[in-house]
Amino acid sequence: MASLMEDEVFRSFAKYAAIITTKLLLMGPVTAYYRLTRKAFQNPEDAAAHSSKPEDLKQLVRTNDDVERARRCHQNDLENIVPFVLIGFLYSLTGPDPAWALLHFRVFVCSRFIHTVAYLRALPQPSRGLSWIVGLLTTMSMAHSVVHSVVFH
Amino acid sequence: MASLMEDEVFRSFAKYAAIITTKLLLMGPVTAYYRLTRKAFQNPEDAAAHSSKPEDLKQLVRTNDDVERARRCHQNDLENIVPFVLIGFLYSLTGPDPAWALLHFRVFVCSRFIHTVAYLRALPQPSRGLSWIVGLLTTMSMAHSVVHSVVFH
Amino acid sequence: MASLMEDEVFRSFAKYAAIITTKLLLMGPVTAYYRLTRKAFQNPEDAAAHSSKPEDLKQLVRTNDDVERARRCHQNDLENIVPFVLIGFLYSLTGPDPAWALLHFRVFVCSRFIHTVAYLRALPQPSRGLSWIVGLLTTMSMAHSVVHSVVFH
Repeated sequence: MASLMEDEVFRSFAKYAAIITTKLLLMGPVTAYYRLTRKAFQNPEDAAAHSSKPEDLKQLVRTNDDVERARRCHQNDLENIVPFVLIGFLYSLTGPDPAWALLHFRVFVCSRFIHTVAYLRALPQPSRGLSWIVGLLTTMSMAHSVVHSVVFH
Repeated sequence: MASLMEDEVFRSFAKYAAIITTKLLLMGPVTAYYRLTRKAFQNPEDAAAHSSKPEDLKQLVRTNDDVERARRCHQNDLENIVPFVLIGFLYSLTGPDPAWALLHFRVFVCSRFIHTVAYLRALPQPSRGLSWIVGLLTTMSMAHSVVHSVVFH
Repeated sequence: MASLMEDEVFRSFAKYAAIITTKLLLMGPVTAYYRLTRKAFQNPEDAAAHSSKPEDLKQLVRTNDDVERARRCHQNDLENIVPFVLIGFLYSLTGPDPAWALLHFRVFVCSRFIHTVAYLRALPQPSRGLSWIVGLLTTMSMAHSVVHSVVFH
């Protein structure tokens, strides 16, 4: 059982995977914060918890630019962080060079934090685009190592 | 190979992860059911499979409240169940107390079934909100254990 | 460490999981390609990177049928490929028959490539629906094996 956790690369992977998955998870409360402060809800029952006036109910079920921005950021995290963890796990098992593996994990995690700041603050492009592509290339480099390792070893 | 599956905590994890991932997967057919019964499709080719009248095609590509509710429930499942499985796997490898680990898995799985019922039935808040937060805290507690275990042991 | 990668079934799983997760990841660039060629952006800062005329900014933040189709395809991939990898991993650990396991992995991967072609090309139904259901049943068959294996062995 403990054998995976005794491996240096796997321990690094576990740490960075837990950190970046927690960051993905926290996009839920971030979106909820925007919904509550901007009073923009998706469901009538949510609006009803914030106002008992019937005329408010219809008005509070609406979209808001800040909420939609947080949702898009959350969705991009889902689309990129989940594949990173799935492929990073397999990559950790192929016996990569520890320093090289650590570089992959750190570059990916940094790129996603930069991506979130660029998205939520609406920083000018190409800040968000570049941070997205860096994360994408990091994961694809690991996926290539996995396929190469399985096919040729 | 069999070493992971011989571990008590990992076996519990595997069972609950398989159950809750199947539940996530079944939200697809649930949404499809609402699309078919409410006749609200996303693609012209889907509408074409249900009616050959040209004037129907435009009308059948539409949104419907029940369909959108099922989709939001599915999306919330994706955002929460996938991180649970990713982090729960790493947590299982850190050698947690079996009873404590089992409590985490069971509380999470229960919270997500309650969440789905609360969402699809539009139960009054805070039923859905609380079940979401309980699941979130369960996963974050496991993520904390993973990082703590890697950094301090 | 190497013990998982020395297992025949796990090696097959690693290969197919890396391939299909890379395919999921590539839906990001596919959507970006449609956004750039159709000039349909989600964020004002993205539109600003493509035109400096103020009157263009509002017009370029819009939806486009091809972009929305690529996004739905990406979303369906997320909803189906991620559960496949999660459950496929647990399934690989239950000691399945190698030929039977390989069949599951190959059928799933094929079904998703067909699904993507059917979606992006808007092929007549039931091509897309069938490829989705085949993938779904493959993953559920593996989930059943996992639960059965944990409960009865």
